[in-house]
Amino acid sequence: MANIYGVIMAGGSGTRFWPLSREALPKQLLKIYGDDPLLKQTINRISILVPHDRIFIVTNRHHMDQIKYQIKDIDKVHFIIEPSAKNTAPAIGLAAFELMAIDPQGIMCVLPADHIIKDEQMFSAAIRFASRVAEEGYLTTIGIKPNRPETGYGYIEAGNEIGISNGNGDLQVFNVKRFIEKPHIEKARRFFKEERFLWNSGIFVWKISTIIKELSKYLPSVFEALENVYSGKHEDKNHGLKDAYAKIESVSIDYGVMEKSDRVAVIPVDLGWSDVGSWTALDEISPKDANGNIITGNVVDIDSKDSILYASDRLVATIGLKDMIVVDTADATLVCGKDRAQDVKKVVEELKKRGAEEHVTHRTVIRPWGSYTVLEKGDRYKIKKIVVNPGAKLSMQMHYHRSEHWVVVSGTARVTRGDEVFFVNPNESTYIPMEVRHRLENPGKIPLQIIEVQNGEYLEEDDIIRFNDDYGRE
Amino acid sequence: MANIYGVIMAGGSGTRFWPLSREALPKQLLKIYGDDPLLKQTINRISILVPHDRIFIVTNRHHMDQIKYQIKDIDKVHFIIEPSAKNTAPAIGLAAFELMAIDPQGIMCVLPADHIIKDEQMFSAAIRFASRVAEEGYLTTIGIKPNRPETGYGYIEAGNEIGISNGNGDLQVFNVKRFIEKPHIEKARRFFKEERFLWNSGIFVWKISTIIKELSKYLPSVFEALENVYSGKHEDKNHGLKDAYAKIESVSIDYGVMEKSDRVAVIPVDLGWSDVGSWTALDEISPKDANGNIITGNVVDIDSKDSILYASDRLVATIGLKDMIVVDTADATLVCGKDRAQDVKKVVEELKKRGAEEHVTHRTVIRPWGSYTVLEKGDRYKIKKIVVNPGAKLSMQMHYHRSEHWVVVSGTARVTRGDEVFFVNPNESTYIPMEVRHRLENPGKIPLQIIEVQNGEYLEEDDIIRFNDDYGRE
Repeated sequence: MANIYGVIMAGGSGTRFWPLSREALPKQLLKIYGDDPLLKQTINRISILVPHDRIFIVTNRHHMDQIKYQIKDIDKVHFIIEPSAKNTAPAIGLAAFELMAIDPQGIMCVLPADHIIKDEQMFSAAIRFASRVAEEGYLTTIGIKPNRPETGYGYIEAGNEIGISNGNGDLQVFNVKRFIEKPHIEKARRFFKEERFLWNSGIFVWKISTIIKELSKYLPSVFEALENVYSGKHEDKNHGLKDAYAKIESVSIDYGVMEKSDRVAVIPVDLGWSDVGSWTALDEISPKDANGNIITGNVVDIDSKDSILYASDRLVATIGLKDMIVVDTADATLVCGKDRAQDVKKVVEELKKRGAEEHVTHRTVIRPWGSYTVLEKGDRYKIKKIVVNPGAKLSMQMHYHRSEHWVVVSGTARVTRGDEVFFVNPNESTYIPMEVRHRLENPGKIPLQIIEVQNGEYLEEDDIIRFNDDYGRE
Repeated sequence: MANIYGVIMAGGSGTRFWPLSREALPKQLLKIYGDDPLLKQTINRISILVPHDRIFIVTNRHHMDQIKYQIKDIDKVHFIIEPSAKNTAPAIGLAAFELMAIDPQGIMCVLPADHIIKDEQMFSAAIRFASRVAEEGYLTTIGIKPNRPETGYGYIEAGNEIGISNGNGDLQVFNVKRFIEKPHIEKARRFFKEERFLWNSGIFVWKISTIIKELSKYLPSVFEALENVYSGKHEDKNHGLKDAYAKIESVSIDYGVMEKSDRVAVIPVDLGWSDVGSWTALDEISPKDANGNIITGNVVDIDSKDSILYASDRLVATIGLKDMIVVDTADATLVCGKDRAQDVKKVVEELKKRGAEEHVTHRTVIRPWGSYTVLEKGDRYKIKKIVVNPGAKLSMQMHYHRSEHWVVVSGTARVTRGDEVFFVNPNESTYIPMEVRHRLENPGKIPLQIIEVQNGEYLEEDDIIRFNDDYGRE
């Protein structure tokens, strides 16, 4: 039997979970449900069928540090980096070409990184069956049996059953008659009554060779752009890919291929699935208290009902709310009714217009060597808490516009300053003058925490001249 | 004509404006309306009639630093410090005895520090007329003409007119028939229809000698306790007062004297008055935008109506709210419907139960020498921003459990460390080891800002041994 490859689509940059999600921390990297971020849950879910070294995460350069930080205990998974965001068809095409070079007989299972699936056993069974269907040359999709007349999902209408039998007979596969966009409520009610309408989960299983063939047929420009790169016409593949992506069409796999192909099959299944498209999706997936509330973090609530109350360290006090969403983070708070959860994107648009930062990053920013948190910005000074992971080191660097005072509060720092190299222990400090080359390392076994006070006229992140970097950022 | 003395009652410690108000920052010290804190507005309002050196602020030791900070541009006002909070009758008695020693013929005008009065001219006219009525031996109160059937205020029923004429004839004075507690809505509606029912403003004007006489008659225990202190029976007046207060009855002037005395008069007047008893009072006093919202600070709002949205530096995003209150501060956020504004006190009770701090202080704490802000607390470290006012100095002090790193970000510090005295300039740092006597001063003309990183096993405020203090805190 052919090998299955897990291709996890982790390039999304949704804002519908703002202020918890940010451009730098999209939904797939949030712990919205369960103890792990959704991407990590997706990896773990497919790991039952696919070894780690056959899992490929498709993402972009901006999210790499955060993803690596989140899955640092999972080794061997691969990354496919898109040069820019061009919707799902190019991303899937890119992964298909990448896999084609490894295993032309392989089967590819495409999984969105940011969905919730509660029934992992049924998920495994469905993917196993989908692989058998895929072997017959089908573009196989997983269709979710609706449990309500949902207007927020696209639908798939199943046609005739295809005569491929599942081992133990509890799953069936059908030809797909058509894909249907998000319906109005009347239509959704009708769909809900008729068994042949299913939710489009965005989970696809197909032979690598099949999807490449279908791409060449229905999205020839995407196919050719990638074919050019992978046929070795460029000396530098990364450079070629960047060029190709600059021109490639931005199009979804649904619109570009699935709605047009006559080789599409669907397996109806009940997975306890949600695409968690907005804060209100938590209502379907999270346990509630006796008053119907979902409460997380440092909340003092009095008499609220059916509300989602999310705090972090700061205190949030709520009184007598009903069907409300309150989400508090270190630098931003959202308050809205559940019926307005979709309008969170309007807030993000407004923030973009204002040139604000609260939709881009959190106060704490993950770096390959650890993280930093801006504690305070003032006139000519900025204060950061810096955490350096054991064994990690920042780049050898220099600043034109600022000097830095470092006070070690835990762990031990190895500091390079000009020609000197010395250690700084807890409750000791050092000073890095402007224009002096320096490097901060954690040679120890526990995290190094330092408080940095920057002084200078210009204190932005781009005043870094890097001379030597473990993470290729020179 | 007798001198008028302004006695401003600033001992309140209300929590109904939490999280903006705290035990350390009660309502009278907030800028709820206008550009100045309410106490400062009260001082400015009475200053038209009374010179600063005849204004006495009755408060307690805890709020002194903050009050002095807020009114630093107002000189010559006096303070009367209550040893403990014992309601209004002892506080007024204390002020009366204090003034008796200065000017036995004087008239005393008692003003709550935390009310709003929009019509300052009418206020002046009313106080002037009340002083004339007071000269005739009356306990004169200002009665507010109701503009709605309010259930949140106590009422005064006016009786027959007293034949004392106001200069230009537009104010009248009446005997008081009775005081009435906060009524139910039916009663409030009836009161509103009949002109003789007035809101009890808590503003009183009387001769110092009259109120002392009435206290001796209706609250003899309070009178005697104070009489003992002021008749010189104690060698140390402060000490005597502390002893007296420990035993003194906690009672309001309304219940203890006003409701019993037959010398009470009321002047009905329309002042644009509010006692701003809760967040919803802003609805009556603050200007609203086109959607009926009162919005302050860093708020991004979409489609909200008739809501009070208060942010500070952090971003608050609101969508589609209706009749809601959202108040965000550096360490705590409140979200509730306007109809639940009274229940803010339940949140404060819950915080007390939890041993929390968010009802006690803000993140920034005022000190006589300036202020400090806790930026971060961690295991064995704490980071503070310290601002020292020009010319001010902290106490000579020592800590058993912590060492301190200081980085100057603006201004110049004069540091005493053991036997050394030296200056630390911006972008320079110094280190104070554990158990070493030290002192921080700002000898300059601009505020000194330093970042302090504390290291140690115990980092609470009470690990300070003071040797010498400009503010008497040894």
